[in-house]
Amino acid sequence: MTAVPAIETALAARRALIEGELERRFAAPAEDPGRLMEAVRYSLLGPGKRLRGCIVTWACEAVGGALDDALAAACAIECLHTYTLVHDDLPAMDDDHERRGRPTSHVVFGEALAILAGDALLTEAFGLLAEVRDPEAAVFCVRALAAAGGVRGVILGQVRDLALAGTESLADLERVHAEKTGALFAAAAQLGGACGGADGATLSALYDYGRLLGIAFQHADDLDDDDRPELAADARRRLGELVAKAKARLSILGDAPAVSLLAALAERTAARSRAH
Amino acid sequence: MTAVPAIETALAARRALIEGELERRFAAPAEDPGRLMEAVRYSLLGPGKRLRGCIVTWACEAVGGALDDALAAACAIECLHTYTLVHDDLPAMDDDHERRGRPTSHVVFGEALAILAGDALLTEAFGLLAEVRDPEAAVFCVRALAAAGGVRGVILGQVRDLALAGTESLADLERVHAEKTGALFAAAAQLGGACGGADGATLSALYDYGRLLGIAFQHADDLDDDDRPELAADARRRLGELVAKAKARLSILGDAPAVSLLAALAERTAARSRAH
Repeated sequence: MTAVPAIETALAARRALIEGELERRFAAPAEDPGRLMEAVRYSLLGPGKRLRGCIVTWACEAVGGALDDALAAACAIECLHTYTLVHDDLPAMDDDHERRGRPTSHVVFGEALAILAGDALLTEAFGLLAEVRDPEAAVFCVRALAAAGGVRGVILGQVRDLALAGTESLADLERVHAEKTGALFAAAAQLGGACGGADGATLSALYDYGRLLGIAFQHADDLDDDDRPELAADARRRLGELVAKAKARLSILGDAPAVSLLAALAERTAARSRAH
Repeated sequence: MTAVPAIETALAARRALIEGELERRFAAPAEDPGRLMEAVRYSLLGPGKRLRGCIVTWACEAVGGALDDALAAACAIECLHTYTLVHDDLPAMDDDHERRGRPTSHVVFGEALAILAGDALLTEAFGLLAEVRDPEAAVFCVRALAAAGGVRGVILGQVRDLALAGTESLADLERVHAEKTGALFAAAAQLGGACGGADGATLSALYDYGRLLGIAFQHADDLDDDDRPELAADARRRLGELVAKAKARLSILGDAPAVSLLAALAERTAARSRAH
């Protein structure tokens, strides 16, 4: 019998907590004209790892904040992440019909409602950030999430991704990973830090940690998919570097249990690639 | 020779000012991968009345605030309004090929980029609100814009609009007008008030003013289009009522010149329908 590593137990517990919070905030309404909320709930409450939400809450606790202070921001980042999946899956984009074992939003609800459900999730993400208790922290979160999700972050990454021809170098791929995944992981770590009252130097370290981890995470995903085997050796080496750098940036944070969880999350990402 | 009414002169001057601000904040970048910023600029900087932006700045001045304090929020509301147009025009929605005498975004840039440009405009709208100087006002603006743009406002209105069969009663149409147009006009007036430091009772009056004006504005648009002539007499009467109520809600604001402009804007909306 193999013992379940502590990080897996912690992730499962935190995922359940975040999903409970999402369920509470996006409860099914008594009336649902045009099935809008059903479409929002279908994508938001479907299966997911909630990694970004876990990072928000652990980053908050890592800087001495309370879990409660981070929950609105954790839900916000999950809303924003889900909107990117719903829109990326659209026929005009990646035209994906299945995600996590279920038909995609536009397959179930039609294209118009999938577009609108994505728009709603993006809008609600910012609405949730307005609930962050300290107004200055809330404004910081709005600015950070808009920067990560905007024309220099996730959206630029998706524009580049659509243009990829499948013959790019590892460096080209990494730029897209930085924009699409790194930016949002970085925002997750920053948002958590801000909700916990972190100072500028700590927020900057959290940003780096998240960015490096996000890029590493996407390299690991590519290695899982195995569709560019000629890049695998370089990608595995690069993944190791990124994870080591991400962990090193946590040294400023002290030794709260949540810091160990952030470090373990990085190690877990590196371990994924060694399993192949 | 007919004298140009003062409200027209004021609108033209304020529109030019807001457009200058938008041009400055969304300048063409040196590099533009995938034409993302070109698509954003095409829709945002194209011809427009900038009514919502004018309302933001006048509401700010009406409560004693400075014009400068309202410009970020005025740009934010124009971004949000533009995103709704870009997404509503998509083939999966209204499938419109022309708007304001120019081909729509998806005709020029393709569907994927039109979706992403809309997403970018929605994201930047909230990023701009993070620039509102006073943090508590900024958070109020984020909450108000998310509420207006979200699943109980603009997006719900669009979902209902897509389902309209062309045989609705005036009351049914008015509900869509309230969600799609009233919510955003109300947010414009509230945002301006918040940027100018208005108290709760004043913000509530500004909300009502904007909401009533937005519904009236949409009735006037319908009368222009003349596609439901059987509703025209009732719509014209209702428009007059709405404009009178909107103006009445301004009485709390005192007699700053900007208050007169908000009142004149309401009168102008009523006058449009009498011209038919």
